[in-house]
Amino acid sequence: MYAKINNFFDFQNKNSKIRDYQDLDHIDGVSISTISANLYNVKRDDLVLFYFRNGANSASVYTQSQIKSENIKWNLNINQKKVRALLINTRNANALTGKSGYESMKVLANDISEKLTAKQKIDEERPEKIKSNDIMFACTGTIGEKYPLKKIQNNLENLINKIKYTQNKYVWVKAGMGILTTDTRPKMAMEECKIGNTVIKIYGIAKGAGMIQPNLATTLCFLFTDANIPSSILKKILTKNMETTFNAITCDSDTSTNDMVSIFATSSANNSIITNSKDKKLNDFQNKVHKVLLNLAKSVVSDGEGASKFVSVSVNNCKNDKDAKKIAFSIANSPLVKTAIAGEDPNWGRIIMAVGKANVKLKLNKLSLYLGDIRVMENGNLYEKYKETDGKEYMKNKKIDIILDLGLGSKNFRAYTMDLTKEYVKINGDYRS
Amino acid sequence: MYAKINNFFDFQNKNSKIRDYQDLDHIDGVSISTISANLYNVKRDDLVLFYFRNGANSASVYTQSQIKSENIKWNLNINQKKVRALLINTRNANALTGKSGYESMKVLANDISEKLTAKQKIDEERPEKIKSNDIMFACTGTIGEKYPLKKIQNNLENLINKIKYTQNKYVWVKAGMGILTTDTRPKMAMEECKIGNTVIKIYGIAKGAGMIQPNLATTLCFLFTDANIPSSILKKILTKNMETTFNAITCDSDTSTNDMVSIFATSSANNSIITNSKDKKLNDFQNKVHKVLLNLAKSVVSDGEGASKFVSVSVNNCKNDKDAKKIAFSIANSPLVKTAIAGEDPNWGRIIMAVGKANVKLKLNKLSLYLGDIRVMENGNLYEKYKETDGKEYMKNKKIDIILDLGLGSKNFRAYTMDLTKEYVKINGDYRS
Repeated sequence: MYAKINNFFDFQNKNSKIRDYQDLDHIDGVSISTISANLYNVKRDDLVLFYFRNGANSASVYTQSQIKSENIKWNLNINQKKVRALLINTRNANALTGKSGYESMKVLANDISEKLTAKQKIDEERPEKIKSNDIMFACTGTIGEKYPLKKIQNNLENLINKIKYTQNKYVWVKAGMGILTTDTRPKMAMEECKIGNTVIKIYGIAKGAGMIQPNLATTLCFLFTDANIPSSILKKILTKNMETTFNAITCDSDTSTNDMVSIFATSSANNSIITNSKDKKLNDFQNKVHKVLLNLAKSVVSDGEGASKFVSVSVNNCKNDKDAKKIAFSIANSPLVKTAIAGEDPNWGRIIMAVGKANVKLKLNKLSLYLGDIRVMENGNLYEKYKETDGKEYMKNKKIDIILDLGLGSKNFRAYTMDLTKEYVKINGDYRS
Repeated sequence: MYAKINNFFDFQNKNSKIRDYQDLDHIDGVSISTISANLYNVKRDDLVLFYFRNGANSASVYTQSQIKSENIKWNLNINQKKVRALLINTRNANALTGKSGYESMKVLANDISEKLTAKQKIDEERPEKIKSNDIMFACTGTIGEKYPLKKIQNNLENLINKIKYTQNKYVWVKAGMGILTTDTRPKMAMEECKIGNTVIKIYGIAKGAGMIQPNLATTLCFLFTDANIPSSILKKILTKNMETTFNAITCDSDTSTNDMVSIFATSSANNSIITNSKDKKLNDFQNKVHKVLLNLAKSVVSDGEGASKFVSVSVNNCKNDKDAKKIAFSIANSPLVKTAIAGEDPNWGRIIMAVGKANVKLKLNKLSLYLGDIRVMENGNLYEKYKETDGKEYMKNKKIDIILDLGLGSKNFRAYTMDLTKEYVKINGDYRS
């Protein structure tokens, strides 16, 4: 399974259910190139390069899996000061590929840095050398398969020749689609904010929980901004905002070896210097980073494999954050809840079952449950005015809000997921048959 | 969804894929009655009574869910010395039914104890009173729906009139089927053992992870023995043997409000008196209890909703039991692993993904993976002689063994599950449409 779409117009024609993604535009200091290295043996883009002419401060968070892909190991090792390029390939995850997988990263980093150094010299008459340690990688696709080093190497020249210094929405869509696997649509979001009096752009693209022959769901998300913010502060901002965005989504409870969320800041905006992550001048920036991340995280879920409905699970008034999160994910990961939603069945009993199994201390007589605005349970009992017909009607919506009130404290957590459909099983079970 | 089968012969005709369950026979001190109280509004048995003429020592373990059904609350409260009867009803779980659900248990216990006292007087000329606190209940079915007290009450006379003091295999099959919900076949197992020189019978029946309109999967399992063993020791034996049997199975990671495993010992066998759970005379009994429990637990999984394959996950040579169990369940609950198995895809990458996400410290270079006898990974690398065609051939089996060696210690755990098929989603998502 892969996105069989090749360009923006094809895409629009083939997908009438298209969810509005936002149009991205030019952002200073970011250059993009997207090509096909024929990794799928069908005509689609599969290599995307982001080139930062003046380098970018950056921060990343990676999969919590004990088994990490070789590109993530590379990124963790290089400890670069300023990132000069990020190469993303699909089709192959470079996970469980051992030494040769890691060596491939080294080889590509060398080649890319040499070629970019040469290009920089010609295009900008800048003589300084770009180092291989300045190159980062994101990979998504099959795990355990030999990394297609040669194919990618052979296409680097073409990739770098096609770098566009100025972006428009088409360049972004091409990049946004070049990183997809089984996703059915690109995921792009943007916000503007101010740091002091300087207008700052925050752009983001992501790919979601799509499966690719024959392996894993991987989430990749990249944010780009022209803000001038040191890497250490970017790291704090990114980490802080993960909890309620990409760490709040679940498609099928599985975790990839390749998950990666990064932010790159080109500093072109020339805002006033920031030296403290608690600087109030950063408030607007922080809020907008959160907004872009949340927007992209939701896009990932609503385009989850086989998804027919987008589901939010709000667990309110818990004793502590941990309890709220535990219950939210117990519901969001429950196959019984998710199949009921697919069947448009207001099956509140399964939701309560999932609350019960979360291993959190409850007072049943304080528990209330809502489906959207419809009160279903109140203080542990079925709400007397609740009508099954109302519940059934509500479940026909494309967006389902499950809201629980535990009545035990003041802590809340919201998780996002989608329903579990026969299509999910088909995508993940049938593709070889 | 419910078992649309009404008797043993119907059943055999309709289900040619029948898995061999064992024939049970007479066991002294156990009397059985199975009838239809028309709880389903179709002709099938739905009420089963086990009556212990001379009482039974007993022990039970219940769901770990924070939300327990009203019958389980009743069982936990009554604190009886000798159980005189166990009533099992299907169709309604008596969960989230509040006060009226609990009161229903009280009413039924009263009625049953009075009627049994009267029967005892007539059949055996025994005048002593059976107390309502001597009656236990198991319920399975819809949660949150009003408990059908009247319907059950109206059928108690018939139920008790039909008590059979002598059992044969047909009486057991009728009981075994009377407790089913979406299960497709009865689950029955037996072993014989010796305590000292006395031959002891251990019989068991179970119902599995079937869904019932419109709610939960519930596991019920009841063991019956003629051994003379005190309740306190039965409790130790039962608890000890749960870990590797009913606590080692998972169908979909969900937990019912009604799960219950009980053992009833009638003492009719007159074996030598046991006062210590570590008495070596109990070794054979313990082993056979384990065997019956494991046999039934496996039956539950292999008849799990939509199951087309039975899967065992062995995680060997871990640092400790907890790690082994965590990894085993991470694999056994992974939708990606389970859909791959449904698709007969030797997708070892997904298995390793599930190992990685289990949050257990690994040494990848010590990790080995087998599919049955086929070595797939060795010391963290794809085994050089592994052929994808061999893996594909293996996945066609009905019974799939996933075997992991962590190479970090000496602790093992084996979990049992089944594959995740479109049929599962259909059963759990489509039944109202």
